[in-house]
Amino acid sequence: MFFGSDNQTGASLQVLEMVNAANKGYAHGYGDDQWTRKAIDSLKEIFECDLEVYFVSTGTASNSLALSCLVKPWESVLCHSHAHIILDESTTPELFTGGARLVPISKGEGKITADNLIEYFKKAGTNFPHNSQARALSITQTSECGLVYTPDEIKELSFVVKQDGIGNGKTNEKESGLKIHMDGARFANALASIGCTPAELSWRSGVDVLSLGATKCGALFAEAVIFFDKKLAEPFIYHRKRTGHLISKTRFIGAQFAGWLQDNHWLALAGNANTQAAQLAKDILSFKELKLTWPVQANELFVIMPANLANSLHEAGAEFYYWYIDALPSNIKLGNGEVIIRLVTSFATEDKHREDFCELIRQYFKSH
Amino acid sequence: MFFGSDNQTGASLQVLEMVNAANKGYAHGYGDDQWTRKAIDSLKEIFECDLEVYFVSTGTASNSLALSCLVKPWESVLCHSHAHIILDESTTPELFTGGARLVPISKGEGKITADNLIEYFKKAGTNFPHNSQARALSITQTSECGLVYTPDEIKELSFVVKQDGIGNGKTNEKESGLKIHMDGARFANALASIGCTPAELSWRSGVDVLSLGATKCGALFAEAVIFFDKKLAEPFIYHRKRTGHLISKTRFIGAQFAGWLQDNHWLALAGNANTQAAQLAKDILSFKELKLTWPVQANELFVIMPANLANSLHEAGAEFYYWYIDALPSNIKLGNGEVIIRLVTSFATEDKHREDFCELIRQYFKSH
Amino acid sequence: MFFGSDNQTGASLQVLEMVNAANKGYAHGYGDDQWTRKAIDSLKEIFECDLEVYFVSTGTASNSLALSCLVKPWESVLCHSHAHIILDESTTPELFTGGARLVPISKGEGKITADNLIEYFKKAGTNFPHNSQARALSITQTSECGLVYTPDEIKELSFVVKQDGIGNGKTNEKESGLKIHMDGARFANALASIGCTPAELSWRSGVDVLSLGATKCGALFAEAVIFFDKKLAEPFIYHRKRTGHLISKTRFIGAQFAGWLQDNHWLALAGNANTQAAQLAKDILSFKELKLTWPVQANELFVIMPANLANSLHEAGAEFYYWYIDALPSNIKLGNGEVIIRLVTSFATEDKHREDFCELIRQYFKSH
Amino acid sequence: MFFGSDNQTGASLQVLEMVNAANKGYAHGYGDDQWTRKAIDSLKEIFECDLEVYFVSTGTASNSLALSCLVKPWESVLCHSHAHIILDESTTPELFTGGARLVPISKGEGKITADNLIEYFKKAGTNFPHNSQARALSITQTSECGLVYTPDEIKELSFVVKQDGIGNGKTNEKESGLKIHMDGARFANALASIGCTPAELSWRSGVDVLSLGATKCGALFAEAVIFFDKKLAEPFIYHRKRTGHLISKTRFIGAQFAGWLQDNHWLALAGNANTQAAQLAKDILSFKELKLTWPVQANELFVIMPANLANSLHEAGAEFYYWYIDALPSNIKLGNGEVIIRLVTSFATEDKHREDFCELIRQYFKSH
Repeated sequence: MFFGSDNQTGASLQVLEMVNAANKGYAHGYGDDQWTRKAIDSLKEIFECDLEVYFVSTGTASNSLALSCLVKPWESVLCHSHAHIILDESTTPELFTGGARLVPISKGEGKITADNLIEYFKKAGTNFPHNSQARALSITQTSECGLVYTPDEIKELSFVVKQDGIGNGKTNEKESGLKIHMDGARFANALASIGCTPAELSWRSGVDVLSLGATKCGALFAEAVIFFDKKLAEPFIYHRKRTGHLISKTRFIGAQFAGWLQDNHWLALAGNANTQAAQLAKDILSFKELKLTWPVQANELFVIMPANLANSLHEAGAEFYYWYIDALPSNIKLGNGEVIIRLVTSFATEDKHREDFCELIRQYFKSH
Repeated sequence: MFFGSDNQTGASLQVLEMVNAANKGYAHGYGDDQWTRKAIDSLKEIFECDLEVYFVSTGTASNSLALSCLVKPWESVLCHSHAHIILDESTTPELFTGGARLVPISKGEGKITADNLIEYFKKAGTNFPHNSQARALSITQTSECGLVYTPDEIKELSFVVKQDGIGNGKTNEKESGLKIHMDGARFANALASIGCTPAELSWRSGVDVLSLGATKCGALFAEAVIFFDKKLAEPFIYHRKRTGHLISKTRFIGAQFAGWLQDNHWLALAGNANTQAAQLAKDILSFKELKLTWPVQANELFVIMPANLANSLHEAGAEFYYWYIDALPSNIKLGNGEVIIRLVTSFATEDKHREDFCELIRQYFKSH
Repeated sequence: MFFGSDNQTGASLQVLEMVNAANKGYAHGYGDDQWTRKAIDSLKEIFECDLEVYFVSTGTASNSLALSCLVKPWESVLCHSHAHIILDESTTPELFTGGARLVPISKGEGKITADNLIEYFKKAGTNFPHNSQARALSITQTSECGLVYTPDEIKELSFVVKQDGIGNGKTNEKESGLKIHMDGARFANALASIGCTPAELSWRSGVDVLSLGATKCGALFAEAVIFFDKKLAEPFIYHRKRTGHLISKTRFIGAQFAGWLQDNHWLALAGNANTQAAQLAKDILSFKELKLTWPVQANELFVIMPANLANSLHEAGAEFYYWYIDALPSNIKLGNGEVIIRLVTSFATEDKHREDFCELIRQYFKSH
Repeated sequence: MFFGSDNQTGASLQVLEMVNAANKGYAHGYGDDQWTRKAIDSLKEIFECDLEVYFVSTGTASNSLALSCLVKPWESVLCHSHAHIILDESTTPELFTGGARLVPISKGEGKITADNLIEYFKKAGTNFPHNSQARALSITQTSECGLVYTPDEIKELSFVVKQDGIGNGKTNEKESGLKIHMDGARFANALASIGCTPAELSWRSGVDVLSLGATKCGALFAEAVIFFDKKLAEPFIYHRKRTGHLISKTRFIGAQFAGWLQDNHWLALAGNANTQAAQLAKDILSFKELKLTWPVQANELFVIMPANLANSLHEAGAEFYYWYIDALPSNIKLGNGEVIIRLVTSFATEDKHREDFCELIRQYFKSH
């Protein structure tokens, strides 16, 4: 019953086999090898465009390296108040960007809305160099609440930050408006959920840089920073090297991506996680005492339950985390003695895991 | 009619004369001189305690150098949503602290409250090293809304962040709780307004480091970073040097402070600014069409007026800034066509300046 | 004929098998797993002491993260003029330490000597905070010239930097003297060469922190930062997280180390590389036209040869790099048309690779 | 007898009077005032070109802010082994550039030579992004040994770093070659010494950015960063603000420069310092026991003398510093019991100061 995070699993067999295959013989270091090239070619084909892509070993590195190419040290990045980059990645964004600032612009909703952006720009100071100016927007797919940004929603955000959707000319001050970064640690889950093309969920909707994560969805450690706007990538190799993220035997990350992407394997993995999450949501809602705070659109569930039940589940060996109280949407309040927990399913979640978990809940309610 | 900022004035004559006096003869560089010593001695006497103090030339440097001694690069500083350090000092705090984060914790009120802090700590993550941990609180005296934190209010904040006023043990995790920094760019105005002792308004109420500004209140450029907790000052000289803020001819900053502090000159200067502000507030309220958003407690006024009037005043040569709309307290809304402007009086403001300004308003309303 | 670098090989089978084994089932992330614990236990046993150890994925990260715990942003690290950290790791040390400086203190010798250190301290300024003060020494094992620092040599360096071997008290200014970091990217090769214990080659000789590399010697990507002085490790987890080097599925690095260390596998791997290098040195010296610049003590050879031969070898598919001319010892000069190349053998080098390489040389000299 | 540094003096009366004059009335902050404009206009006229210029309060800030516009965080700046930026400004260059590296490229000579540069480029690695690439050269005028770079010498350096004077195309890799920064803390002394035009000593010889110091030569604290290549200045205002170096009452720095430059006052001040130094050199050489290490070309003398004499002078109240032993040219060795000291004359040095100093020497030799 490992619902703590999708990083509690290992790698899928197809990914691991590719790593084993890549181990044979010699290869050049630092990305000049056939496995890395294969991964790059797959990504170009899947995203239906030319692109620049670089591989690193962690999501934190992937996100902050992407941001380091989008803003100057005196500029800012807009993000959700519960964005992983602002809550769970220490001050990596500050370090990698040379000191740029993260500005949280939403509260009480699971995703950033166009209104959040418009409100921000209305009040934002424009007295440079005193005020730090926003030059990038970072959104998380799926969001930290497990919600999927649809292509239309992304386009709406893009319209505001890139094409002066505010109507006061502010965003266009330096021609190009803000750049959009997508933290795609669970991009595969979003894609499997919504069923559109990868291109539609990224560059066709306005995303400039995508941090595509394979680690949470079946790899050992494999993350790709994909630049759809290739000019933005120019300083990337310098940032990656000086943060210690240039892997000498890059072929082993290339191989993971090659295995992960082959024959839509990544979508199958994500699909299983999503299906299990959907079924778990049904299971949960079959208990009248439990509530879900958000619709379950991918592989994360946020459940409101009695603290005693949560304790009891933990004691029985179930793995999950308590969640930030202020992540609750404004129309939902925790009752007395209630907590909010997060459950994450993965490519490896099986029916049995769910059933064991629900059986524990059942027993708890029977005896309370 | 220079109400744009108190930095639009020059220096008071007493301050300038001391600079001229200090120019005679030779002196050691870097603070080893009689003028600097005199300033230090005055501060110890005035604050009734031993202390470490260092002089720099700007308020931005003073604030961020203070913070650089309070937090590590992976930690955070709590501050007001409209704090000068977060809105008007670019990303200096991030640079000088090596990448620490500013976390805005209030909205819609002119000062940080104990409740703001308690709410923050309730929701703050404690999953280190993933979450950046708050290790300092920075408050501004007078606040960015021109309000004065009373000693009791400071003590209340201090109780929360230093002595576990939350009751859950969180703030005491590493023994000592958070450190408190006070941005005292207008400390003199607060002091002149409230009438307590400098000690009472700082260390006796829990302030660990005070950025005491003389520039806005009668100096050329003279700022002091005062450590009441001397141990915190240990790395200061290294931070100051490597940010280029060690002045070779420090005697000229020492002299400014010596002149400024002598015979309570600083309080007289601040007192004039406050008196003029209080009178200007009365003048303003004599126009039924105008409103003040906050009580005028020191030398800043925030006036709601028709945009057309503001334009007309600007055109007539009056100097002032438009203010952040979201600084408005929640119970006040701007009417259609209204704006909010900030007026700042200074040590040099004279009755005539106010009268000329009000005459312009009078004429405007006569003809509209 | 891949003699370009030992990172052109894959992983040894024993290492890879452990990764495959670790893939089974669930595990906690971030190092709280049985494989990581197994690796830690092995290291404690092998180094015969308690220690703090952290795993990362690259040598560049390992080195600079180690240094980030040894110096403050305004201090310096002494190193060899050809140290990997100063020549080949971009400005990672500067970034991770918050801006500390690398000071090269040797020239024309393959290792740092006590005299280099003594000369440095004689001339080093002590006018703080103006002068940046050296607080750490970093040495590379084996050195960038393929030479092994013996325990006695390390002790001699340690005596100078830690116990006032200069005799003027300078190094002891702040009690503890300098800390010693060892870049052990090829520590295994040094150990296999010299035959002493791991403890003798590290903490017993004065090393405080060892960056132990497995990547070059049989792992996929696995580096360990080992703190023998555990107090120094305190900030490590924060530095690692905020540089994006906390691997979520750490078990896969733990597993690599577990496999690598088991049954002295690491020394067997390093031993093969060393043996092949020694044999290759003999092969090379059998050509009277070729010279070695340094004795071959581990798995690197530096060969002086005609540029035309080097070109011809490259064209025939042999892999190797040209080396820095100024790395030459002062008693050796390049002749006209000569170049210096580096050959690196690895755990996977076979007799056939050497023989093919030498056959190319033979053919070249036959036809020239 | 204050020969410790030219910063032990105050300001010249003409400079101070201008500060007093500027104190009258109101002015906009942050450089939008008549005094700053006057200073800018003077500089354009004196340097005979359009230029961008910014004012700060310290030389350390001036140098590192200039460098922050020339190199990226992963690049390097070439400088003299005894450059003020590498020896006496802590790690400010690293901080302000975001982590770029200073690379010392000379030894045993008082100025950087074209040969130093050529030798550097021959050996410099070009394996990006592993190797940090040099993108700027910084030279000090007058040099740290008190020597003046002639226009021809500067042109020769410029030819090497900008126009591929090495002949291997290396410097032109990214079109424009390296940028040249001049630390002109004593530019006025160099100019007064050599007698050419300011333009000839700067941009006409290849200097892109000049840190022009007035502080050491008659100002309170006033330093100008002058960009002859205006495009390079684009990020300057952001760097200046976020390092806390944007002075609110900039008019008082503008006024200092206005007074300093008016009627060639700066050259008169520097001329007096140089004349006194030349005379002091004669005085010194009249003692057969004393030697000068370098020709005295501006206002600094480096004297080799018995340590006992130096002690005796210090005890009698003379002010001066001991100098770095390794600054000695290779053809000069310190005798037993000898030391090297630096004497600096200033705009305020009078005959009497010299005479008193020499009288002390005379008495010492009489009694020893």
